[in-house]
Amino acid sequence: MAALQTLREWIGIQQFPPATQSKLLEILGKYKEEDVSSLTVLVMGKGGVGKSSTVNSVIGEKAAAVSTFQSEGLRPTLVSRTRSGFTLNIIDTPGLIEGGYVNDQAINIIKRFLLNMTIDVLLYVDRLDVYRVDDLDRQVVGAITDAFGKEIWKKSALVLTHAQFSPPDGLNYNHFVSKRSNALLKVIQTGAQLKKQDLQGFSIPVILVENSGRCHKNESDEKILPCGTSWIPNLFNKITEISFNGNKAIHVDKKLVEGPNPNERGKKLIPLMFAFQYLLVMKPLVRAIKSDVSRESKPAWELRDSGLASRRS
Amino acid sequence: MAALQTLREWIGIQQFPPATQSKLLEILGKYKEEDVSSLTVLVMGKGGVGKSSTVNSVIGEKAAAVSTFQSEGLRPTLVSRTRSGFTLNIIDTPGLIEGGYVNDQAINIIKRFLLNMTIDVLLYVDRLDVYRVDDLDRQVVGAITDAFGKEIWKKSALVLTHAQFSPPDGLNYNHFVSKRSNALLKVIQTGAQLKKQDLQGFSIPVILVENSGRCHKNESDEKILPCGTSWIPNLFNKITEISFNGNKAIHVDKKLVEGPNPNERGKKLIPLMFAFQYLLVMKPLVRAIKSDVSRESKPAWELRDSGLASRRS
Repeated sequence: MAALQTLREWIGIQQFPPATQSKLLEILGKYKEEDVSSLTVLVMGKGGVGKSSTVNSVIGEKAAAVSTFQSEGLRPTLVSRTRSGFTLNIIDTPGLIEGGYVNDQAINIIKRFLLNMTIDVLLYVDRLDVYRVDDLDRQVVGAITDAFGKEIWKKSALVLTHAQFSPPDGLNYNHFVSKRSNALLKVIQTGAQLKKQDLQGFSIPVILVENSGRCHKNESDEKILPCGTSWIPNLFNKITEISFNGNKAIHVDKKLVEGPNPNERGKKLIPLMFAFQYLLVMKPLVRAIKSDVSRESKPAWELRDSGLASRRS
Repeated sequence: MAALQTLREWIGIQQFPPATQSKLLEILGKYKEEDVSSLTVLVMGKGGVGKSSTVNSVIGEKAAAVSTFQSEGLRPTLVSRTRSGFTLNIIDTPGLIEGGYVNDQAINIIKRFLLNMTIDVLLYVDRLDVYRVDDLDRQVVGAITDAFGKEIWKKSALVLTHAQFSPPDGLNYNHFVSKRSNALLKVIQTGAQLKKQDLQGFSIPVILVENSGRCHKNESDEKILPCGTSWIPNLFNKITEISFNGNKAIHVDKKLVEGPNPNERGKKLIPLMFAFQYLLVMKPLVRAIKSDVSRESKPAWELRDSGLASRRS
């Protein structure tokens, strides 16, 4: 069921402070220059990390339902907003972990929902203010990789929410951010089994986000990170860099949705196998049999019989 | 291996502000009145929720190693501090979840470590600022219940760290605290399979904690919760209430450490089974056989033989 796209004017942009608005419009201008009329951003990650809140912050409206206590339903949500001919599509998705396991059903529902869409950017969301990574994180990344292929990580960013967080005592904020980012980037590398050459020439950008209304602001009333950066334009900038980073966007076709058909797997090998069997097994076998036959010393009775047989014919 | 108890003077208490010190000494006075010379507190929970930080805050020293990024080793740590004849024992333990599974090895190590100790209070620690509970939480509670028995929850408190947290927009702090507490108390009830009657007359207190050095302070320089309560004396008060709540402390003996011996299970039933078998199976069987024999109409040849047999004897 291709997602119904009800194009709505991007009104939410007007509730950002003027300084943020002008930066966003400048960024949208880049798409115009490149003659790109739409951008599709997929937001994925574990439950309760702030995916929906991030979508709402970026759109500037309560477009995605934020379910603070219950885990969200399994339905992805497509939020589309248009502004002077440019359409921003953001797909909010259900959390991928349920009771300690990757929720394969959620992954399948997401893939089906995305049929015939093209993903320009994947935002993989987690919290900045959590101290450990574990196997579950690797399983989530592995499940995304199995679903969309390794290439999706070349169109992805790691978004860390709850950025306005005071690290445990004695830890410097930037030091904490880099340690937490590296831990998660390592998870992505191992979970997606990205080899060195897969990573050639690109690194997954890390984007800090603070969705809470108590986020500090600068004198232009823009929401800022502890380092002073206005985080909404920063997020858009990074998304734009990814969408123009030269790597291929991920088109979700039927084949991707249904996943690798086990029968398809290795089909190309079949003719090779035949050739191999013919050349290296059959031919030597036939030759061996023929040479056996020719060198065969027939017993007397057989010689006599074949002698009689030849006189009769 | 019974934990080596190196009694050390509780110096850490002196680094609390005077207001907190006097409250703590007042609380310690209660133990004196009750002629109780020691208190043993067991701190358990998932990894990365702030167990070690809580132990350090309460003791007033960096007694337990805080491993922010790596999961802590599997060794529990016993921190013992003495003050005018009263000894406070706090046992910090490794996180109980590893890669999405309850770490049974950690539970066994903790049980062995506690051999011959008596647990007066269990502090079950989790974070306030996390939005979801899931099956893993129930599994952790279930594992603690299997290890120490349901009774331990009558000597427990739910400690929520990161209390100085601003809830997502629109959510009032107290509302968030009560929703998060209820969600976790429900997890404890279902995970420990506590029935209504198990809960008669007691409810698990919820204690808020903020370990970060940036915790707000009152005019007496005491670390306070958003509601203004000085949280260290509050924690000690709640712990003291639990230790004197009339429910039995949990003594960790060999039987508890080794867990229910499958051969032991149902041993008491064996004599009952024999009696049952004898009365309701064997006796009726014998009676039926006897009556059969008596009503048996012997065939002629047998009568003749038994007739001959009786003349010969």
